[in-house]
Amino acid sequence: MNANSYVVGVDYGTLSGRAVVVRVSDGAELGSAVHEYAHRVIEQRLPGSGERLGPDWALQSPQDWIDVLKVAVPAAMAAAGVAPADIVGIGTDFTACTVLPTTADGTPLCFETPAEPHAWPKLWKHHAAQPHADRINELAARRGESWLPRYGGKISSEWEFAKGLQVLEEAPEVYARAERWIEAADWIIWQLTGVESRNMCTVGYKGIFQDGGYPSEEFLAELNPGFAGFVGKLATGEVGEKVNGTTVAHLGGLAGRLTARAAEWTGLPEGVAVAVGNVDAHVTAAAADAVRPGQMVAIMGTSTCHIMPSDRLAEVPGMCGVVRDGIVPGLWGYEAGQSAVGDIFAWFVDNFGSLDHERLTELAEKQAVGQHGLVALDWFGGNRSVLVDHNLSGVIVGQTLATRPEDVYRALIESTAFGTRMIVETFEKAGVPVEEFVVAGGLLKNRFLMQVYADVLRRPLSVIGSDQGPALGSAIHAAVAAGAYPGIEQAAAAMGQRTEAAYVPDPARADAYDRLYAEYRRLHDFFADGRMLHTLRAIRNEAGS
Amino acid sequence: MNANSYVVGVDYGTLSGRAVVVRVSDGAELGSAVHEYAHRVIEQRLPGSGERLGPDWALQSPQDWIDVLKVAVPAAMAAAGVAPADIVGIGTDFTACTVLPTTADGTPLCFETPAEPHAWPKLWKHHAAQPHADRINELAARRGESWLPRYGGKISSEWEFAKGLQVLEEAPEVYARAERWIEAADWIIWQLTGVESRNMCTVGYKGIFQDGGYPSEEFLAELNPGFAGFVGKLATGEVGEKVNGTTVAHLGGLAGRLTARAAEWTGLPEGVAVAVGNVDAHVTAAAADAVRPGQMVAIMGTSTCHIMPSDRLAEVPGMCGVVRDGIVPGLWGYEAGQSAVGDIFAWFVDNFGSLDHERLTELAEKQAVGQHGLVALDWFGGNRSVLVDHNLSGVIVGQTLATRPEDVYRALIESTAFGTRMIVETFEKAGVPVEEFVVAGGLLKNRFLMQVYADVLRRPLSVIGSDQGPALGSAIHAAVAAGAYPGIEQAAAAMGQRTEAAYVPDPARADAYDRLYAEYRRLHDFFADGRMLHTLRAIRNEAGS
Repeated sequence: MNANSYVVGVDYGTLSGRAVVVRVSDGAELGSAVHEYAHRVIEQRLPGSGERLGPDWALQSPQDWIDVLKVAVPAAMAAAGVAPADIVGIGTDFTACTVLPTTADGTPLCFETPAEPHAWPKLWKHHAAQPHADRINELAARRGESWLPRYGGKISSEWEFAKGLQVLEEAPEVYARAERWIEAADWIIWQLTGVESRNMCTVGYKGIFQDGGYPSEEFLAELNPGFAGFVGKLATGEVGEKVNGTTVAHLGGLAGRLTARAAEWTGLPEGVAVAVGNVDAHVTAAAADAVRPGQMVAIMGTSTCHIMPSDRLAEVPGMCGVVRDGIVPGLWGYEAGQSAVGDIFAWFVDNFGSLDHERLTELAEKQAVGQHGLVALDWFGGNRSVLVDHNLSGVIVGQTLATRPEDVYRALIESTAFGTRMIVETFEKAGVPVEEFVVAGGLLKNRFLMQVYADVLRRPLSVIGSDQGPALGSAIHAAVAAGAYPGIEQAAAAMGQRTEAAYVPDPARADAYDRLYAEYRRLHDFFADGRMLHTLRAIRNEAGS
Repeated sequence: MNANSYVVGVDYGTLSGRAVVVRVSDGAELGSAVHEYAHRVIEQRLPGSGERLGPDWALQSPQDWIDVLKVAVPAAMAAAGVAPADIVGIGTDFTACTVLPTTADGTPLCFETPAEPHAWPKLWKHHAAQPHADRINELAARRGESWLPRYGGKISSEWEFAKGLQVLEEAPEVYARAERWIEAADWIIWQLTGVESRNMCTVGYKGIFQDGGYPSEEFLAELNPGFAGFVGKLATGEVGEKVNGTTVAHLGGLAGRLTARAAEWTGLPEGVAVAVGNVDAHVTAAAADAVRPGQMVAIMGTSTCHIMPSDRLAEVPGMCGVVRDGIVPGLWGYEAGQSAVGDIFAWFVDNFGSLDHERLTELAEKQAVGQHGLVALDWFGGNRSVLVDHNLSGVIVGQTLATRPEDVYRALIESTAFGTRMIVETFEKAGVPVEEFVVAGGLLKNRFLMQVYADVLRRPLSVIGSDQGPALGSAIHAAVAAGAYPGIEQAAAAMGQRTEAAYVPDPARADAYDRLYAEYRRLHDFFADGRMLHTLRAIRNEAGS
């Protein structure tokens, strides 16, 4: 492989796909392009038939994903000015759990029966399977299933089993026709290579694959006799073992080689390496060169996702999941999350005042710690970690007639930092050390917010050096799949971008925040049982119906 | 007295004075006029010298009060088209405790030494005597003074003794020259009649006069030896007994007769009856014909004041005061309060959104009870009753990313209604029945808010029939002083204006509010000890200094 080898990383987001062309030797990003999905998120009516969808539904079109390959990849190549012959591999990452039913050859069922809602891919934020998730959790808790604590005690309605059970019970004929139930992250790799595989990341985090197996047939049958054989639609062998035409594959591995058809779509050479599929948040760890034990990467945007490899297994209260080999092979991969972060600030700006983010930040930044007299609970979108309760809601305490919008804005920012501190402390208390806190994502650009986090966490913050972290991470995985590096860690070290201690805590401010954090914890403990917040929500739901 | 007798009521507010001409026979309001004080509230610098005032100072000019007599009274007479010869009396009410030092002949010290801040009248909302009030409360609690429970366990920094002690300690030479320390409510009567008197209302509520006496000389000396003789500047005799040139006088009584000088100011006939002074909130009870035991009048505006006569004495937790003869002779008069009510809604509208009161009300009104999922504590201006803690602050609970400004606005309105319910229940639990709830004040015009109060309180609301309640109440007192009626109750029955059951609770909504109120009480109990809210305020104060 020569010094001028390049790889392509493709990041499939919620509304668009982004391709970036990256130099293998140092991770330099030479060109990128974005393609917006024609159908965006399908939430109201099905394309074509106009069939109306239920509440909390969210679908996508596989055609949109193919179009990213046809449009964004060639555009990124053109922008980069790189010769196709110098491309050695391609990697992708996807939202998850975004999952679809297909035939045995990978044809999405929605291509065959587009008027059937359940034939379409269910986007990660399809939340209509909540009753099914509730039943799964209840039964697993009752039976003491060993996999349940690996997910903080609850699996999400967004995941493969909940969505699959919904299809079975609401559209049994679709369920019967679905020979495969596959993550979009893996389906797109199938389209690129002609070979079906399942990546270790979604298999573990979204597919409840633990200690070499899925929930038992007995468990599934107890949920619904028709669900007993569900795992037959997944990948069932040992890692690397081909069973039923598919394989559970290690991250960074070679999924296959670019087919002639995919070469035509993308303009890339037929036969280049295609990396095993991956997930946007998890692949960002490589982009930040943060794939060693104890490096917690927080991808901070509308919500925050925390990703951390570790050499030890523990059951951390409220984590989203711990998966062996789930971030990099050979380590345990932890995931935790905050349901709403940037969403909270946007909600406040959109609804409660006439000032924009810039002006509010400017005013808030002038204040001394605690000068606003406020403390808030950051549960406006529920609480993912550490309480795993999406029926919680927000609290703001301490307002007077002198309280101004910038005071509340600052308190909201701080509340999310306190929420992060609660997560970090919970990991450490459970025996999983957090050695370095690395920030990626859109909120990086708010320097004031970053300093608040450094002060609240009482630790230096490292920051990713790329503003297209997931796409860069996918490119790094492509380089590993192409054999340019022996593993993800080496590739990340060469190609990932991270600035250490970009923000350092101020001791005086950190001390002041300790006092506010003590009040946050008291609030947290008072409201954590949900007694008041669940009652308010129940009253709300009854009143609204 | 013939059928076409009239009286004049003058209401001295914080920013202006209002005169109204009222028919004695039926309370018909024939004309009114307002005069705005030239100096309004003096908070930054003294007039003339430009001397800068400290934080929390608030003064007024006695000349402004005289100007109301010269301008508003003749203007109201002109508007009414009533012949001066048909006027039989004049009555006034004032903000309280607004208090000033004068010479023995009633000359305000600020007329002599206008460059001395302490020579000026201290407006009710002068809060710079808080340290003095704190010392009074601490000492009274330590000594177990019997008068302390009559004020809910705490006297206010706004009252006569706290403000007097501040003068002594910060300007001893002013204190020494002050032969009289007199409420503006009584000073204006002195100007009208040439005779000094002290009204039973402020003597009791603001002057700590209980069971026939003031705090003891021994108590005052322990505060400061120089303060021992303070009550010599007040009125010290039995009710009706002239001692040291002044008298404690019953409400509705004849304070004196209009002097030639005052007749010239006002254009009214010399010699007409002048009623004993009174306080704006308390005199409103007469205007609403609500002076019988158990009729609680809520004067709802920027804040809310609750006034209720009763035939029984009890120590109600958190009341502002209970005073024998304090509203009408022969009954106990109770006062309670909510520090901020309309102020809260104004604060929200001014700071948190782009919608005005009308639009927010329109949107909020469409909701079912509890549909917003919120509950709030109405402590944005502290909590007067029932916690007597102005260092508490507001709390809003239950917000999600779907929460809109009208949701919060409605929850704020409800929170003040819950606060009122807490006060009503506290009275009843203490053995003082609330038989009827009567609303006066500016918030009456918000019909939605009124309905919320009816539903939350689970009782019909009566409403006052006048939008100038205090001035009408003063006119009613003038009619009593003029001998047109044997007492306030009879005059109020003839001249007061009240609609019974103007709002009646809806049982279903009331039931729904019971559930929200249960959550309000849980919040109330959690935050009542001030542990968190005082800590936040302390951090705020340290950070801001």
